[in-house]
Amino acid sequence: MAFGWIDDHADRRRRAGLVRTLRPRPAASPLLDLASNDYLGLARHPEVTGAAAEAARTWGGGATGSRLVTGTTELHAELERELAEFCGAEAALVFSSGYAANLAAVTALAPEGTLVLSDAGNHASLIDGCRLARGAVQVVGHADPDAVRKTLRAHDGDALVVSDTVFSVDGDAAPLDRLAYACRETGAGLVVDDAHGLGVLGDGGRGAPHAAGLAGADDVVVTVTLSKSLGSQGGAVLGPAKVIDHLVNAARTFIFDTGLAPAAAGAALAALRLLRAEPGRAARARAVAGDLHARLTAAGLDAVRPDAAVVSVRAPSPGSAVRWAADCREAGLFVGCFRPPSVPDGVSRLRLTARADLSGEEVARAVRVIDATRP
Amino acid sequence: MAFGWIDDHADRRRRAGLVRTLRPRPAASPLLDLASNDYLGLARHPEVTGAAAEAARTWGGGATGSRLVTGTTELHAELERELAEFCGAEAALVFSSGYAANLAAVTALAPEGTLVLSDAGNHASLIDGCRLARGAVQVVGHADPDAVRKTLRAHDGDALVVSDTVFSVDGDAAPLDRLAYACRETGAGLVVDDAHGLGVLGDGGRGAPHAAGLAGADDVVVTVTLSKSLGSQGGAVLGPAKVIDHLVNAARTFIFDTGLAPAAAGAALAALRLLRAEPGRAARARAVAGDLHARLTAAGLDAVRPDAAVVSVRAPSPGSAVRWAADCREAGLFVGCFRPPSVPDGVSRLRLTARADLSGEEVARAVRVIDATRP
Repeated sequence: MAFGWIDDHADRRRRAGLVRTLRPRPAASPLLDLASNDYLGLARHPEVTGAAAEAARTWGGGATGSRLVTGTTELHAELERELAEFCGAEAALVFSSGYAANLAAVTALAPEGTLVLSDAGNHASLIDGCRLARGAVQVVGHADPDAVRKTLRAHDGDALVVSDTVFSVDGDAAPLDRLAYACRETGAGLVVDDAHGLGVLGDGGRGAPHAAGLAGADDVVVTVTLSKSLGSQGGAVLGPAKVIDHLVNAARTFIFDTGLAPAAAGAALAALRLLRAEPGRAARARAVAGDLHARLTAAGLDAVRPDAAVVSVRAPSPGSAVRWAADCREAGLFVGCFRPPSVPDGVSRLRLTARADLSGEEVARAVRVIDATRP
Repeated sequence: MAFGWIDDHADRRRRAGLVRTLRPRPAASPLLDLASNDYLGLARHPEVTGAAAEAARTWGGGATGSRLVTGTTELHAELERELAEFCGAEAALVFSSGYAANLAAVTALAPEGTLVLSDAGNHASLIDGCRLARGAVQVVGHADPDAVRKTLRAHDGDALVVSDTVFSVDGDAAPLDRLAYACRETGAGLVVDDAHGLGVLGDGGRGAPHAAGLAGADDVVVTVTLSKSLGSQGGAVLGPAKVIDHLVNAARTFIFDTGLAPAAAGAALAALRLLRAEPGRAARARAVAGDLHARLTAAGLDAVRPDAAVVSVRAPSPGSAVRWAADCREAGLFVGCFRPPSVPDGVSRLRLTARADLSGEEVARAVRVIDATRP
């Protein structure tokens, strides 16, 4: 019987208390949101939603084809130019998702014969990129630039180092400067995913690579998402023009995917322009995260000091994390709950995101709820 | 020097005449479009673009998180219900792209120990799904159900057969009934990608699996795209509720990707409702394809008889195909050009798409241009 084994998997999940279910949310939720990745609070900004609407009316509901056939509009080109300019990169290429951008960057830049060093805490999309790449993959310890340097020095041939800039589970930052140094010393390429850095870190939100002085470097490729700080959907790869040209010619998730919908391109472009016009949003997101962490710690909760806008709070077990998040929701607070198998270290946590538009009173209320519902 | 090898790749492409470049298009192109996958001509339909705009204003520029955290809105749930109902499936799950939907379906349904049989002509996204899956992959000849049957009969254990329903390069259809029979006889699962079938084939555009009597089957999983006939962006997996539940719990491109943007969900839902209200659009797309093929053949061109809305015309070489497409463009006609390495058989072709809203005069004009510019 086809798919009979699925019943066993479902039973195991049920017994382990690890069943995931979808909860459709209404347009106007009464919950205080500390769960979304809308770091700058731009997803509902009228200029962003207005630009999405305008783009749909002007360009259509979809891109109608792959980027190399009919799927590149002048709007896509405009977004790519402005994204590259903002982040200080020579060129940019937009994808239908950050996941697709990561698959593209890693697979196209790690052909047969390349040694790929991948941080143990990397996001699923980087891991899948490594698995799809023809190069040989070696997982290195989390945020361990010495291990990277040692391995690169012992390797003779092309190499690529792959890391998140800010890790999505705990919100901790990668040692970008030391990774870049190790790469430069040995001629290796560096691919970093700035999904949680863009809009939050660096001068006016230009991202973690910009803050580390790596913008425009000829040996660094940055991937970003349009779906977090930029309040839209999609992803992009930023880097030297020759790398971007290579992706256009070689990256399967670019060549064989329909282009990003015009509405998403328009929304991301509007958000980028807002961020440019109001650079204080980035600093505000970091300040809110710092405030959130301080209040959690003052309440005696085990929270990880945030390097960007993600604040993680440890829970004793998967079951208690689920109940904790449910109790928060009951009390009007929406928090994320990360647990196995989505967390590489097996530790369950509440995952909180600090939005630039949260008030001090909202942060205080969130911490009161989290404290009152603690397991 | 990092990425130094890219220069060699670029040189090789240049010498082989295989350089791809992006050509941003304006909002109002003067070209007659036979290149997009907008089969029903709905991408620019005011109800579709209006629904995209309305969804952006109501729900925001993006979904703000993964589907399991904040990224599932009531709009996503509504789209999933109506898609499943339309195609006759028990349940549906929407993804940010058809590529992501295919990666999800194949990887989640082919765990370690599964034998995966993949058609040699399958789309890149199915191939990448096979490469990411933990099961053992065997490529079978293109549209060869006897080979599938023979291999399945000789295999002891779980197996999954993976195929496009309509192949994107030549537009030929898979022998779905015989594949399904071979699967059923041996207890194998069947995953079919109906990207080019939905909206074109089957009763009122319900797709190739529906036409083959496989809608609602408990051993068949269908993937579709929202970016072709439905004029939007995104993809979906349709199948038994237990399979969809499994994907929610196990598919990495579902769990770790931001949800589809509300504007794209809204546009796809509006297009689906239009197709429901005007089921003749599907038959019209097929009729236009038949007319296009007949005229091309009458002009002595080597065109493949279309099973859906894609019509492929053979070109003598990659170089002549590129020139042919460029000459068509010069004469006001936008056609696709498929050439190595994007085509599995190495044959270059013009790829034409028949839209339901093309008039007889437009088809005649397209054929006149293609004939006049032939190599």
